[in-house]
Amino acid sequence: MITLEHKTPGHPLYWQIYEQIKRDIHGGVLAAEEKLPSKRKLAASLGVSVTTVDAAYAQLVSEGFLSARPQRGFFVCPLEELKKSQPRPAETEKAPGEKKAEVDFSSGAVDPEHFPYNTWRRLLKNTFNEYDEGLLRRTPPQGDWELRRAIAAYLYDARGVHCTADSIIIGAGAEHLLQVLSYILENSCTIAMENPVYNRAYQIFQRMGHGVLPVDIDGAGMPVEPLADKQNIAVYVTPSHQFPLGVSMPISRRIKLLRWAEAGKNRYIIEDDYDSEFRYLTRPLPSLQSIDDGGKVIYLGTFTKSIAPSLRIGFLVLPPALLSAYKEEYAGFGSLVSRLEQRVLCEFIRGGHFERHLNKMRTVYRGKRALLERALREAFGPSLGMQGENAGHHLLVSPGNGMSESELCAAAMKQGVRVYPISPYFIREIPAEHRGQVLLGYGGLSGEEIEKGVALLKKAWGMQR
Amino acid sequence: MITLEHKTPGHPLYWQIYEQIKRDIHGGVLAAEEKLPSKRKLAASLGVSVTTVDAAYAQLVSEGFLSARPQRGFFVCPLEELKKSQPRPAETEKAPGEKKAEVDFSSGAVDPEHFPYNTWRRLLKNTFNEYDEGLLRRTPPQGDWELRRAIAAYLYDARGVHCTADSIIIGAGAEHLLQVLSYILENSCTIAMENPVYNRAYQIFQRMGHGVLPVDIDGAGMPVEPLADKQNIAVYVTPSHQFPLGVSMPISRRIKLLRWAEAGKNRYIIEDDYDSEFRYLTRPLPSLQSIDDGGKVIYLGTFTKSIAPSLRIGFLVLPPALLSAYKEEYAGFGSLVSRLEQRVLCEFIRGGHFERHLNKMRTVYRGKRALLERALREAFGPSLGMQGENAGHHLLVSPGNGMSESELCAAAMKQGVRVYPISPYFIREIPAEHRGQVLLGYGGLSGEEIEKGVALLKKAWGMQR
Repeated sequence: MITLEHKTPGHPLYWQIYEQIKRDIHGGVLAAEEKLPSKRKLAASLGVSVTTVDAAYAQLVSEGFLSARPQRGFFVCPLEELKKSQPRPAETEKAPGEKKAEVDFSSGAVDPEHFPYNTWRRLLKNTFNEYDEGLLRRTPPQGDWELRRAIAAYLYDARGVHCTADSIIIGAGAEHLLQVLSYILENSCTIAMENPVYNRAYQIFQRMGHGVLPVDIDGAGMPVEPLADKQNIAVYVTPSHQFPLGVSMPISRRIKLLRWAEAGKNRYIIEDDYDSEFRYLTRPLPSLQSIDDGGKVIYLGTFTKSIAPSLRIGFLVLPPALLSAYKEEYAGFGSLVSRLEQRVLCEFIRGGHFERHLNKMRTVYRGKRALLERALREAFGPSLGMQGENAGHHLLVSPGNGMSESELCAAAMKQGVRVYPISPYFIREIPAEHRGQVLLGYGGLSGEEIEKGVALLKKAWGMQR
Repeated sequence: MITLEHKTPGHPLYWQIYEQIKRDIHGGVLAAEEKLPSKRKLAASLGVSVTTVDAAYAQLVSEGFLSARPQRGFFVCPLEELKKSQPRPAETEKAPGEKKAEVDFSSGAVDPEHFPYNTWRRLLKNTFNEYDEGLLRRTPPQGDWELRRAIAAYLYDARGVHCTADSIIIGAGAEHLLQVLSYILENSCTIAMENPVYNRAYQIFQRMGHGVLPVDIDGAGMPVEPLADKQNIAVYVTPSHQFPLGVSMPISRRIKLLRWAEAGKNRYIIEDDYDSEFRYLTRPLPSLQSIDDGGKVIYLGTFTKSIAPSLRIGFLVLPPALLSAYKEEYAGFGSLVSRLEQRVLCEFIRGGHFERHLNKMRTVYRGKRALLERALREAFGPSLGMQGENAGHHLLVSPGNGMSESELCAAAMKQGVRVYPISPYFIREIPAEHRGQVLLGYGGLSGEEIEKGVALLKKAWGMQR
């Protein structure tokens, strides 16, 4: 006989009957193939309406606990033993986090103070208009067409890149776009990489199963000679501002690289232009893509440095051959990037806000860089080594006190300052001239934080000469 | 001698000098290794200040056109021939698009009328507070912790899923998360898939290099027998509402599948719970994950159907063994999902808006489904075949007029109505009972559009009995 053992207030009556019958089936009170009382009978015995029992039986049938046999009634389905369901696991109350440093010289942060919060909020509000159905719909794989148009126009003006909206692929940041690229390059395609290199790009190409050929860079970036006899290869380079060493590729090397790509079979150049917007003593260098007329350059850009790392929007500009491969491979898929943010970014670029923001930020970062340089020179004097061109968001620094990279990082951390090792960026063993160097990013720090950080570094590193 | 040939108004003087020297180098007027006039001399001859020439020379040096030799002056760097730069390619004026249907029975659209635009806009505005640095920072790979907490609580209440924020991975929709999953499963892991199946999932696993084992489903979903002797295998299933056939997996089959997974080596079940929220006659069925106590179920959910396809946010709930593999593989990477939208979604769930929205939408979709069913029955009478349980956003329909799938689609399109073939979802040849069936989604259509669409389908299909 079915009785309601545990009345749980706050649950509808039919649900309590459903739960009770489930318990009875699991507990063996109701055996497999056993016939249940008719709805009318059970309703009468529980003192509820037939509709209530009907709802409970319907739920049990839909989940497969009961089967309804026409003209005969409801029967218990045979089940293998089911283990008891558990209570909800306890949740930790605070987000797990790394030990937070007092001053963090991360190279991945942007200035939080000068972000155009008001403009962005206004664009969000205006873009998210009532009843704009387009905002709910799946975005085509290449991304919002208006945003692609805005990026194409910006790229021509600012970076000399030749493209139309049709050859642009919007993606969820550089790592995602490198994955997309890996799919459309032949599987057998080797990736030649600068050594040292942006290590996440290296991990992605490795993970995607490409052979990786590390090429040690010189003062002009990636040399062409080690590539001379290679075919079916894509060369990943950061010509505007090599990561992490900061050298830029002069025009002569650029032309050599292009000629090399044109001369062989299936040769491509992946130009990661990740922070080209920030050059402080001269204007940004024109892109490699701008002087490519053989369809050899794949251009990769993001808004990670120029707007914010949390805005996961980047883009590829594909040459014609790879664009067809992309269209074939990705037909039927959707964009991974939120439509709303694509639209907001589009208005940000179109309205001239992006250009104004870049101009402002160049001044801001130039100031921070000068401050950091001066503070370091004052703290460490002539033994200080500094590397990295007048660009980007970081410096390579060696205090010249004989400490190793890991000693420098550990001593800094003891004083509450996080600085970053550069050895993870080397695919091969780190060469002697870069030992004892660490990476100091300054984009996310205020002037006071920079000064405080350097003072603490002096304590951390100064004693051990 | 350097002269300014083309004065371009609107450009600073130093830039015009820079451009002229570049032209002279490209044009051979200035030869490789040729010495340039001193800054002072050139300034005098052009009638500009030395600072202006200095800026032009600095830019040319930074790009590698000139080299500065201390005490000796500026020299032209040797360059291989560079081809002429081209004008900006012409842009098409309108977004390229598919032929738009008058009525589109797409299964991928959501109702645009009942979207909580005002709430979402308010949450956007409130979330994007001035000076909230957290919104600019890179999100850790698993996603925003507060959102993960909100999802864990929702999942337990609504789907019986057992998890904490720590075992949730936020990703940019189902396709992205299946890719992530593919990385953390062993490469040698076979993926067993329901046949027919959500074809993008199939494409992704194939592309990622997994062997795929198609298993024909029966009326209870995926049978366990074909898997009996398999090890090192993950089974991709949609137990709440099979896509595209719409069957749901009864409790007995669920238990069998779990027991099978527990009995072998490296066996996992991927539960894609893609539209479990929408069941119209009974309550949503509890998830497979809720009765798994062997750590065998990988739970996949998205907000594609429950909020909007344009919101690219989904999540995985990983069992402990795979969670460690994930953490190892993804350390150092960032989330692909915009932080802002993660925060807004978090507030949407926490504030109870999500639950209210689901309740409202169940009623809305139930009404649309009933309307479509009634209109189809009236139009096609007793020869009409209809399949798909009382759930989801689509029906499988065959008018019973002997037309093939492609004839049905083409005839509908001629009348301006888009209906969808189901053969693309079959990995093997489509079985006889599903020929002559097409897929009609109704989520994005209004009542009037549904009625108009069916009237046009009657014209398209009715004549040819």
